[in-house]
Amino acid sequence: MSSSRKVVELFYDVVSPYSWLGFEILCRYKTVWNIELQLRPAFLGGVIKESGNSSAALVPNKLLYARSDLKRLSQYFSVLLCFPENFHNAYAKGSLSAMRFLTAVSEKQNSGDVMIERVSREIWKRMWSADQDITLPASFSEAGLKAGLSATEVEELLQLSKCQLVKDRLKLTTEEAVKHMAFGFPLIVCHVDGKAETFFGSDRFEVMAHCIGEKWLGPQPDEQTAKI
Amino acid sequence: MSSSRKVVELFYDVVSPYSWLGFEILCRYKTVWNIELQLRPAFLGGVIKESGNSSAALVPNKLLYARSDLKRLSQYFSVLLCFPENFHNAYAKGSLSAMRFLTAVSEKQNSGDVMIERVSREIWKRMWSADQDITLPASFSEAGLKAGLSATEVEELLQLSKCQLVKDRLKLTTEEAVKHMAFGFPLIVCHVDGKAETFFGSDRFEVMAHCIGEKWLGPQPDEQTAKI
Repeated sequence: MSSSRKVVELFYDVVSPYSWLGFEILCRYKTVWNIELQLRPAFLGGVIKESGNSSAALVPNKLLYARSDLKRLSQYFSVLLCFPENFHNAYAKGSLSAMRFLTAVSEKQNSGDVMIERVSREIWKRMWSADQDITLPASFSEAGLKAGLSATEVEELLQLSKCQLVKDRLKLTTEEAVKHMAFGFPLIVCHVDGKAETFFGSDRFEVMAHCIGEKWLGPQPDEQTAKI
Repeated sequence: MSSSRKVVELFYDVVSPYSWLGFEILCRYKTVWNIELQLRPAFLGGVIKESGNSSAALVPNKLLYARSDLKRLSQYFSVLLCFPENFHNAYAKGSLSAMRFLTAVSEKQNSGDVMIERVSREIWKRMWSADQDITLPASFSEAGLKAGLSATEVEELLQLSKCQLVKDRLKLTTEEAVKHMAFGFPLIVCHVDGKAETFFGSDRFEVMAHCIGEKWLGPQPDEQTAKI
């Protein structure tokens, strides 16, 4: 069965709230559409730099709009997302260590994407629901434990996240995203008939569904499929 | 009846292909949804400058992505949109005179938005379908005649577009867009229960419909309503 499933890659960074929306929608649809969802933790700072883009956070109207847009989308998509009180401070701290930790989780996992999905969600919840730190080892420990990892596993992952192997892997994934035309996140790459169809942002699901021969059922597909 | 209709304003510039998509979708829906569509020609160059944003055309990956994204959206939305062969050249020439001409059309009209809709579409078709100039008086004449204006009316509008009144009107509309958080176009402002809900881009129609109490029926609402 897996050979007939279309591969959909999600390149994301937990510092990006739009990435969280895209992540939750794709996690909901992975059991509705005939797709194999591959979660690809990458580094937004690297993408911004490599692509020559400038951060959206530097344009006051973009930031004002994002606050209003994300408030609406949070309700519409049912993802409990609120801006950190001191967003600029939280954003300036960056996400390099968080994305290295997630890359370590991704390297270690051997049973599909279950744990990378859970840990990513817990880190997003820290920054984008609870206004908590996502830069310190203690923060990753707490997120890992909540996601269902043991204390020993968390400790191993913290060590692994400092290894060159993991640093290089994150760099490679980020470069791969840039080759797929990334200038920000989320970037969703759908492999259709040997061709890569790339979608930026969390606002192309209807067109994406059309591209992969599936149907967009809105942000709550389970409720919709229950009705059919 | 008109008092119960929700006002939806579209701020746009003909140099922006995403504005064209938003324009066509809203023109299709103005007879499907209970809205009063107000077309607001404005100047993208002014918005970019005033908001401190940088042009998307300067980031190579953004431009590459836009080409691929617009090709897909053009098909999905059924709007015949193709990139001008020498896009950078066409873009560098700017749209100030085109938007002044459209502002003159908007000032002159006295029977709803019929003519501003037609002339805007003809100018978009020049740049984004036929790879033709949109900076010279002869180009506006041709677009105006195709839209159904007489030669005398076109001549009057060309004169009017050079008046201070029209220059000031375009500046005011552009400033109004910036006050509504614009950092690019299209910007769609929906007036709902005394509050302005602002949407940037041509990818929020599903959420917008939800906000104004209407239903998104896809890019071809007439075909969908015919089925119901």
